[in-house]
Amino acid sequence: MIYSFKNDYSEGAHPNIMKALADTNTLQTVGYGEDEYCEKARELIRKKTSEKADVHFVVGGTQANLIVITTALRPYQAVISADSGHINTHETGAIEAGGHKVVAMPGENGKLTVQNIEKAVAEHTDEHMVQPKMVYISQPTEIGTLYSKEELIKIHECCKKHGLMLYIDGARLASALTSDINDVSLCDLAEYADAFTIGGTKCGAMFGEAIVIMSDRIKEDFRYMIKQRGAMLAKGRLLGIQFYELFKDDLYYEAGMQSNKTAMIIKSAFLNCGFKLLTDSHTNQQFPIIDNKTMKVLEKDYLFETWCATDDEHTAVRFVTSWATPTNAAENFADRLKEITKGE
Amino acid sequence: MIYSFKNDYSEGAHPNIMKALADTNTLQTVGYGEDEYCEKARELIRKKTSEKADVHFVVGGTQANLIVITTALRPYQAVISADSGHINTHETGAIEAGGHKVVAMPGENGKLTVQNIEKAVAEHTDEHMVQPKMVYISQPTEIGTLYSKEELIKIHECCKKHGLMLYIDGARLASALTSDINDVSLCDLAEYADAFTIGGTKCGAMFGEAIVIMSDRIKEDFRYMIKQRGAMLAKGRLLGIQFYELFKDDLYYEAGMQSNKTAMIIKSAFLNCGFKLLTDSHTNQQFPIIDNKTMKVLEKDYLFETWCATDDEHTAVRFVTSWATPTNAAENFADRLKEITKGE
Amino acid sequence: MIYSFKNDYSEGAHPNIMKALADTNTLQTVGYGEDEYCEKARELIRKKTSEKADVHFVVGGTQANLIVITTALRPYQAVISADSGHINTHETGAIEAGGHKVVAMPGENGKLTVQNIEKAVAEHTDEHMVQPKMVYISQPTEIGTLYSKEELIKIHECCKKHGLMLYIDGARLASALTSDINDVSLCDLAEYADAFTIGGTKCGAMFGEAIVIMSDRIKEDFRYMIKQRGAMLAKGRLLGIQFYELFKDDLYYEAGMQSNKTAMIIKSAFLNCGFKLLTDSHTNQQFPIIDNKTMKVLEKDYLFETWCATDDEHTAVRFVTSWATPTNAAENFADRLKEITKGE
Amino acid sequence: MIYSFKNDYSEGAHPNIMKALADTNTLQTVGYGEDEYCEKARELIRKKTSEKADVHFVVGGTQANLIVITTALRPYQAVISADSGHINTHETGAIEAGGHKVVAMPGENGKLTVQNIEKAVAEHTDEHMVQPKMVYISQPTEIGTLYSKEELIKIHECCKKHGLMLYIDGARLASALTSDINDVSLCDLAEYADAFTIGGTKCGAMFGEAIVIMSDRIKEDFRYMIKQRGAMLAKGRLLGIQFYELFKDDLYYEAGMQSNKTAMIIKSAFLNCGFKLLTDSHTNQQFPIIDNKTMKVLEKDYLFETWCATDDEHTAVRFVTSWATPTNAAENFADRLKEITKGE
Repeated sequence: MIYSFKNDYSEGAHPNIMKALADTNTLQTVGYGEDEYCEKARELIRKKTSEKADVHFVVGGTQANLIVITTALRPYQAVISADSGHINTHETGAIEAGGHKVVAMPGENGKLTVQNIEKAVAEHTDEHMVQPKMVYISQPTEIGTLYSKEELIKIHECCKKHGLMLYIDGARLASALTSDINDVSLCDLAEYADAFTIGGTKCGAMFGEAIVIMSDRIKEDFRYMIKQRGAMLAKGRLLGIQFYELFKDDLYYEAGMQSNKTAMIIKSAFLNCGFKLLTDSHTNQQFPIIDNKTMKVLEKDYLFETWCATDDEHTAVRFVTSWATPTNAAENFADRLKEITKGE
Repeated sequence: MIYSFKNDYSEGAHPNIMKALADTNTLQTVGYGEDEYCEKARELIRKKTSEKADVHFVVGGTQANLIVITTALRPYQAVISADSGHINTHETGAIEAGGHKVVAMPGENGKLTVQNIEKAVAEHTDEHMVQPKMVYISQPTEIGTLYSKEELIKIHECCKKHGLMLYIDGARLASALTSDINDVSLCDLAEYADAFTIGGTKCGAMFGEAIVIMSDRIKEDFRYMIKQRGAMLAKGRLLGIQFYELFKDDLYYEAGMQSNKTAMIIKSAFLNCGFKLLTDSHTNQQFPIIDNKTMKVLEKDYLFETWCATDDEHTAVRFVTSWATPTNAAENFADRLKEITKGE
Repeated sequence: MIYSFKNDYSEGAHPNIMKALADTNTLQTVGYGEDEYCEKARELIRKKTSEKADVHFVVGGTQANLIVITTALRPYQAVISADSGHINTHETGAIEAGGHKVVAMPGENGKLTVQNIEKAVAEHTDEHMVQPKMVYISQPTEIGTLYSKEELIKIHECCKKHGLMLYIDGARLASALTSDINDVSLCDLAEYADAFTIGGTKCGAMFGEAIVIMSDRIKEDFRYMIKQRGAMLAKGRLLGIQFYELFKDDLYYEAGMQSNKTAMIIKSAFLNCGFKLLTDSHTNQQFPIIDNKTMKVLEKDYLFETWCATDDEHTAVRFVTSWATPTNAAENFADRLKEITKGE
Repeated sequence: MIYSFKNDYSEGAHPNIMKALADTNTLQTVGYGEDEYCEKARELIRKKTSEKADVHFVVGGTQANLIVITTALRPYQAVISADSGHINTHETGAIEAGGHKVVAMPGENGKLTVQNIEKAVAEHTDEHMVQPKMVYISQPTEIGTLYSKEELIKIHECCKKHGLMLYIDGARLASALTSDINDVSLCDLAEYADAFTIGGTKCGAMFGEAIVIMSDRIKEDFRYMIKQRGAMLAKGRLLGIQFYELFKDDLYYEAGMQSNKTAMIIKSAFLNCGFKLLTDSHTNQQFPIIDNKTMKVLEKDYLFETWCATDDEHTAVRFVTSWATPTNAAENFADRLKEITKGE
């Protein structure tokens, strides 16, 4: 039986979520997110972020990104992203389809730097070029790294200085919030960002992302944009029920902790067996660099993603864990890896 | 306790769907609709429609409409719709946001006529105007009426004659397929349309629409469009599991029948009490015209939608039933209505 | 030799314009409208409209319309137009290609009424529909009629009341300004509109439209939009030179007067010969209704446009004059028409 | 008196063009490019390129680029460009506003390489990414360099191999065609490209670009796209008259030769005085690297553009010549430069 570390959406929903959906299944509510469950979930999230936040729910992350960004920008404005940013690489040009250029700048460990934001701003001088107006970062990044609070504040200040909005994609935010090296809280995100998302799909929910908006410019008429982009769920309550469940008793943090715990077991396993890491991730995505022979052996028992060749004989691969990864699945993997490498 | 006839998405999912989702919850699958459940559901739907069909799943109806239409049309091409068509009135300009004009023509009983399609074509003569290239109809329509097979064939022939694609929005298709006056089958839709949807959200599923594509022009690279518009569900299996459940044992038809059965009870109740109907619907939406005094009384016990004033003292209202409407809820309503009107 | 009354862009530019272009041909200037000629023209137009106006020049009318409208509206907002409005019928869906629905309302004599603006607003109630945010009218309209100052003020007040911007397409404004029944001045346009255009192409210039903007919302970063839509002329001075010439000595009014004078000769000719008019136009477009036999005879000597059949034997046709129509061309036509109708 | 080498659109039109416009000024023609002058110009260009070409005229280069590219691509498809490509840097995101990502790859001397095209293709593997479908190059490039016939053929073959269309931006094509190192003819462009432009604005015309289309996919309904993007000139004949004049007696080549001749005088002047060049351009743009002291002195008598600092004391600047640059203006500059550098 093959076990999959391919991604963090291999299973359904956390049992508590499944139970909440089952328990409420036959109740009647109004549609489109105007029901009491959504309202309760919104209130809860406001309490944990900021009373001034507007909170909306949509089904998926690309949806969330494209709606926030196309709402925030005028037609000639652009969003600055690390070149590895999800909006730049893995959303099939959704932002461009919405009319906006993604100004991609080299990242450092997957992170956008103040220096590169400044550079992007400096390079766009007049009306013959797009006008950068927003910065997009991911927490954690696409390769599992984290912005520290200090880094976040510096980016925030750089944004203020240049009249840029700051948008943070939190698709895997549970893993960030509970990482052993993290010092950025939900309240910090609300303080330093103009908008951010709290990912549900990869953090215990069946599906769903919460969009938390601080900026008036983005708040205005946001429901029109949700509807126009086909993202207003008829049975909106499904999102409210899930996010209420995720936040009423810290289930969100539990989910993050389990994903990190199992990721750390896998990370240690690779390190202990003498492998190097592409990047030092303290979240639920790990990028060990392995020789191709070991890769072939591992592929017999495990699913994982090939990231990139690092030389002719080595490949960086991606192992992803989630709330659904049992501790013993990670431990079994660690044992198996030891066996394989000893056997060589 | 107020009972809602406001819409057909007031509850969650059919118990069979809930069970199927629970049963598969901890299984691991690959993402984005490439799992075995989606594949099985696609095969099943192909069997019931056409072996030549491409089948895709998305979460919502506006999503389905905007993706199909923006995939089918070149930038200067337009879609012809009845003025009451959902894409023209209730999707916040999603089609226009995708770059295309909706050429709205007067409908007859909510239905687009061959005559008006011909008129729209005749009025668009050259490159100073948009080029109509697709016809959009809904089965059932937004006011519950149905195209007969004969009408459908005539529209199909008109489309062929003028090089137009035909797209059918089946958001409430279960109700259409099981209506006592219906003679249009799933196979007919596949034969006469270039693409159509099989609505899940309003027909027993927790959420989801199946898009069935017959035309090569629309088939090509369709998954790119799904992804770009933010509609590719990470846990795509959720859609496959539901549609497999809906079609493996005719649950879809069961759902439609229950919605129609309860709608007919309500329709009879209004007719028996001497009320007129705005339109003679044989599906799950009923539009009785009631005096405003009766409306006030009914509003104490029931939720329903105000459709339009027909004169100073009368209002057409909308009652909607679904797979989730218990027969006795409809019967209780019929009794209550008799009481009220006798009491007057 | 056939004479064309087909449109008001059959010839090149007014001789004064040609001379101005020739006189400045070898001078060097900076590009993109930042030269001294454009600056002088902008100042002149500000003097004749409002000191608070921003003035920009583009080559064509569809360009002007699409840039103003896409600058003014957020993605979910719509523009209300008479169904006969140029943006609704003859711009190949340019506004929709820019992402916005044109909410088309029936016009009266080609004019949008306050009643229909109110109706459009009332019909768009929530986020499931587009949000009307701008009103588009043409002065003169597409069928040559004019808004009186009183009508303009009422529309302006209706717009203020509902938070709508007012945009006036002045493609044939010279003819409006000099019409015998006109009481709307350039200053009135600046006072009551949020933006309007002063058409050059059909009013003496070789090409070019001046966009006059009063609203801060539309003013902001407008040059970015001009550039992005491909409308920033490298040799921008060509526009400045022409508009300076048109307004420095009232050439614009002269052009309008000649077009109206010759149009009135043609109008009288039709009336004197017993023909009716589709609409009572006091500007440079005339729409006589003629029997098809007379039409055939006229077509031997004249080019004009077929507008619409009014019955099986009669057709409304369009005769257009311009600054370039010699008085005797109109007089000769009048003589010829008399001959033909007497001959019958 | 300051002389400008700032760009190649500082003056109006070549005297022959001015004469042709004046001579035809009062003639009546039909509009929108359907007149006899446009037809003659199209025939002439077909003779000089390919009998299978479709030829259209628009006013400006950004217009041409955005219309060709948005016509060619389906919504999820992208265009590959050198990072220095005009569409990537100086068109205010016009391509993205049309919905398409520009996949920017590092250029070599301003030129896109086969290797980088292959890399871009290889990096875009599935529907989570845009689909590259077109390659954009400029001849000459934005920094004056030229693709040789061999390079062009290799790019063409690479495009065929990967199902990519090839589009060549010829905004300064006259200078390319007449460069001393050029071996690419108009016929070659027609043979190896799917579409290309013949720039008029910078090559003798008052304004205008000819779009030459070889690919059926781009040919289809192209006039609809021209109109929708606001690029269909009412007095279309203005474009036909100019392009007929440019090609009937090789005026286009004359214009190119004069620009190159004067550019070579300036190039030699810098080389003779010991300056280096940023790039070895054999066309009408020259990029000498000068010390900042010399720059300051030159700025007293000449306008030219600052390109980029090469170190703290040196700056690459851009000198541009055109058909309108008198030979003695270039010679005077050479003399002046000698004076200045001797004086040091």
